[in-house]
Amino acid sequence: MNWNPQHTEVIIRYRDGTVTAAEDAVVSEQPVTIKINREEFVTLVCTPEYIEDMVIGYLASEGIIERMDDVREMWVEEAGGFVHVTLKEWNPLYRKLFAKRYVTSCCGASRHGFVYVNDARTAKVLLDRQVQLSFADCFRLMEELQRGAELFRHTGGVHSAALCDAGGILLARSDIGRHNALDKIYGHRLRHGMSPDGQIIAFSGRISSEILLKAAKIGCAVVLSKSAPTALALELAEHLGITTVGFIRGHSCNVYTHPERISGCDPESLLH
Amino acid sequence: MNWNPQHTEVIIRYRDGTVTAAEDAVVSEQPVTIKINREEFVTLVCTPEYIEDMVIGYLASEGIIERMDDVREMWVEEAGGFVHVTLKEWNPLYRKLFAKRYVTSCCGASRHGFVYVNDARTAKVLLDRQVQLSFADCFRLMEELQRGAELFRHTGGVHSAALCDAGGILLARSDIGRHNALDKIYGHRLRHGMSPDGQIIAFSGRISSEILLKAAKIGCAVVLSKSAPTALALELAEHLGITTVGFIRGHSCNVYTHPERISGCDPESLLH
Repeated sequence: MNWNPQHTEVIIRYRDGTVTAAEDAVVSEQPVTIKINREEFVTLVCTPEYIEDMVIGYLASEGIIERMDDVREMWVEEAGGFVHVTLKEWNPLYRKLFAKRYVTSCCGASRHGFVYVNDARTAKVLLDRQVQLSFADCFRLMEELQRGAELFRHTGGVHSAALCDAGGILLARSDIGRHNALDKIYGHRLRHGMSPDGQIIAFSGRISSEILLKAAKIGCAVVLSKSAPTALALELAEHLGITTVGFIRGHSCNVYTHPERISGCDPESLLH
Repeated sequence: MNWNPQHTEVIIRYRDGTVTAAEDAVVSEQPVTIKINREEFVTLVCTPEYIEDMVIGYLASEGIIERMDDVREMWVEEAGGFVHVTLKEWNPLYRKLFAKRYVTSCCGASRHGFVYVNDARTAKVLLDRQVQLSFADCFRLMEELQRGAELFRHTGGVHSAALCDAGGILLARSDIGRHNALDKIYGHRLRHGMSPDGQIIAFSGRISSEILLKAAKIGCAVVLSKSAPTALALELAEHLGITTVGFIRGHSCNVYTHPERISGCDPESLLH
């Protein structure tokens, strides 16, 4: 592929009173349109690497496919910015459900916080409580994530996500789009039949409802972030059984939901 | 309205070895579904304040309306999370163009960088060069933006945008959604017939193609950010005639496109 995750541009730089011309690296935004059985389905704007993983992760996340076996063929038409996917069975109902609001009669967000029909269909409640980690694990994983994202850091403003177990990072991806990094991880897992051992997601940005749902779909029981969660993400996390740890900075953090997976964090004695 | 931009949650806090229970403010994410002439059009997830402004700004930005006069009626059904809009004329063609890829035969992004049909329809080239500002203005406006966003800062991860002139901030909005803050500014401008004097947008996050296009639609000739632009945003800025200044931190910044609006920044002598 000749798509490039970053470009070099000539810019004008001002530093404490001095103006100079300089070359600088600028991150790419590549529009990628997914066509399903020849029909335009959606356009994602992303950092152009691991595109096949992103497309598979996205389609699984939206409930269009369940496993790689549902895909007959996939090929990237780089010049046009298309990814062509042929599915064994293409149910036109999916098209109607896409981005469709999950509406209930009584409140803005539905019960448990689902916003879209497809999320309520595909995000499963995690009852597994085997994952256990310590506060020290949280700090170490977040530090590893930030070190690993160094390559992108000088272009600024890229989101990083990593699939981890308590011992360390298993797979890390960066993207300018918040959810693309997670779709790339999900797609890799599906395409390579990766074992479900890594059950922790470390994410560089805010834990929004979208990020929380992606983690649930990937099958992760713990979400770590250096930033804050939203109220809707916490409502979903509570319902889906996901541990959320936010504001991980140095040796401080906040545990928002399902603290039972964090050692030394006994909610009974703390909250009552 | 009883929608609340933030909630209080009981959390578990870890600080240098000590675990305590504490109350903390968490930012809201509110799904808001726009219905046009009774038909579900789109669901936006946003910080629930200035909702009418956001809806008008969004519809104008998507080319669904051109001015307030195109709207016969608008009302917010808060309990259901709906905003009902009745348009004088509702062209079903708009529905088809919505989120439709602007495809050209030769390359991933179209000529000039447009990704969506509606953007190519609504973003106009700015030929006006009357706006002039100094590097000191850039630093001061970005500092003002950050000071003004203080209220939201302790909940973390909210984007702030401000419409400014060289003298200062005219209107500032914050939102968990990158483009919502700009839609709220655009909607306010349209609903209140605000003069087109403020032609500068200061934004807290990365200058993506989406943010650049929103600024162009609002009619702004300058975009300031403490973060980085993307290559696609710069391609659009070059074509649309917009000055982009990024990485504004302390007394440093980078000028990427159309430097002629920044005093003391003579591209001829620098680049040749």
